[in-house]
Amino acid sequence: LKLLTAARDLKRRKARERNTLFVVEGIRATEELLRSPIRTRGALVDSSLAKGERGRLLLDELKAKVPELAEVSEHDFATAVHTDSPQGVLVIAEIPEWSLADIVVSDGIRLLLLDAVQDPGNAGALVRTAAAFGVAASIALPGTVDLWSAKVVRSAMGSQFRHTVLHAEFGDVSEFMTREQIVLWGSETGAPPLPSRDARPARLALAVGNEGSGLTSAVRTRVERTVGIPTTAAVESLNVAVAAGILLHELYN
Amino acid sequence: LKLLTAARDLKRRKARERNTLFVVEGIRATEELLRSPIRTRGALVDSSLAKGERGRLLLDELKAKVPELAEVSEHDFATAVHTDSPQGVLVIAEIPEWSLADIVVSDGIRLLLLDAVQDPGNAGALVRTAAAFGVAASIALPGTVDLWSAKVVRSAMGSQFRHTVLHAEFGDVSEFMTREQIVLWGSETGAPPLPSRDARPARLALAVGNEGSGLTSAVRTRVERTVGIPTTAAVESLNVAVAAGILLHELYN
Repeated sequence: LKLLTAARDLKRRKARERNTLFVVEGIRATEELLRSPIRTRGALVDSSLAKGERGRLLLDELKAKVPELAEVSEHDFATAVHTDSPQGVLVIAEIPEWSLADIVVSDGIRLLLLDAVQDPGNAGALVRTAAAFGVAASIALPGTVDLWSAKVVRSAMGSQFRHTVLHAEFGDVSEFMTREQIVLWGSETGAPPLPSRDARPARLALAVGNEGSGLTSAVRTRVERTVGIPTTAAVESLNVAVAAGILLHELYN
Repeated sequence: LKLLTAARDLKRRKARERNTLFVVEGIRATEELLRSPIRTRGALVDSSLAKGERGRLLLDELKAKVPELAEVSEHDFATAVHTDSPQGVLVIAEIPEWSLADIVVSDGIRLLLLDAVQDPGNAGALVRTAAAFGVAASIALPGTVDLWSAKVVRSAMGSQFRHTVLHAEFGDVSEFMTREQIVLWGSETGAPPLPSRDARPARLALAVGNEGSGLTSAVRTRVERTVGIPTTAAVESLNVAVAAGILLHELYN
């Protein structure tokens, strides 16, 4: 693998999808990556990594665990990085090939559907929240930012490494939910609050929509119920990740 | 006011603070601004604004409401803007000079303290959430991103226009809380959940900390209690805005 060329190429979503590879940057995310089951292909570092104690330890860990390691000039490194503060380390790793068939369904299951969520910070916070509460999988529907982009990985604090995330067409997800008797609810501004515990289905998927336009019409048509969070009148809506966090917290409590 | 020069200058936090002016960009945020009590100084537009119906309506509204309006070339406009998709409109407005003395304290009051929150997206989501739930004020402590930066305004969906936000030193905030008998709690990863309703103080300020390092030592020393959100073991923490959203939602329910 030509690491420098590959890292540059993987800035494009199409290249990540074609090669099923993604990029992790920064010390903390790389530490998380190396402790996860995700397979790595190679790492690029520049001289800034080994300037701190934590960076030096990470460099040793990379040497032991990553198939290929290259130290490049700070100039070359800067041309390859995807995020603002890569801290001198970039790792190329394999996107896990999870599919709907990998989701183990039983009563109590909750899924999160990202329905055209566009902001990487929001998508990352959603995945992180889903992972934190034990949601079985985060499923990105068309129009959603690539969950394997370096910005989303950073915002999710690497929770993709230990929580099932996948991209799927809504038709396939819809069939899967029907087959597995999973009920679909949608989060919507102004909708009534969650019903009491005994009125909640044993198997539930919660869809959250686009930052500007909410749920897509395909999803809105398919949901059995919309749920929301009562707020005062002055502000009409919450940030999508905050709203989902509140709903998921309630669903698990 | 030389609008183009002023807009460029206001990219710097120091310039915003010295002039008590800030910049709003984008159609929706500008619409919100013009319906709020915030005073405007002038607007810059380029030819792209009037290409859509909503933009044309906004242009008419700007002509009627803003003291000074300049249409500049797309090139000049691009040199003045602060965010990625300004949609052809930028307004310079006055930062409201709110202080601790403007906060009306009574039983039931809740305040949000941002203790060195650095990400503009997180800070904006926090302010938006506080506004949505009726928090009396969002107070940014030193180390926090400028709540009047264009990125924070955008992320907050302009909730600064109708919700009291201010920057203050922690010493002043601490004295204010003592004088007004407001109890300080801090949100911290791994801390116990919120106590039951009857164990919650009538007057409460909730502090949330930095994305990486949590609460500063000054705040941690001063809090009477830390509270958290139980999660599964796999992921150690939630995004700061998601965590605050869950806690504030509980505090208002």
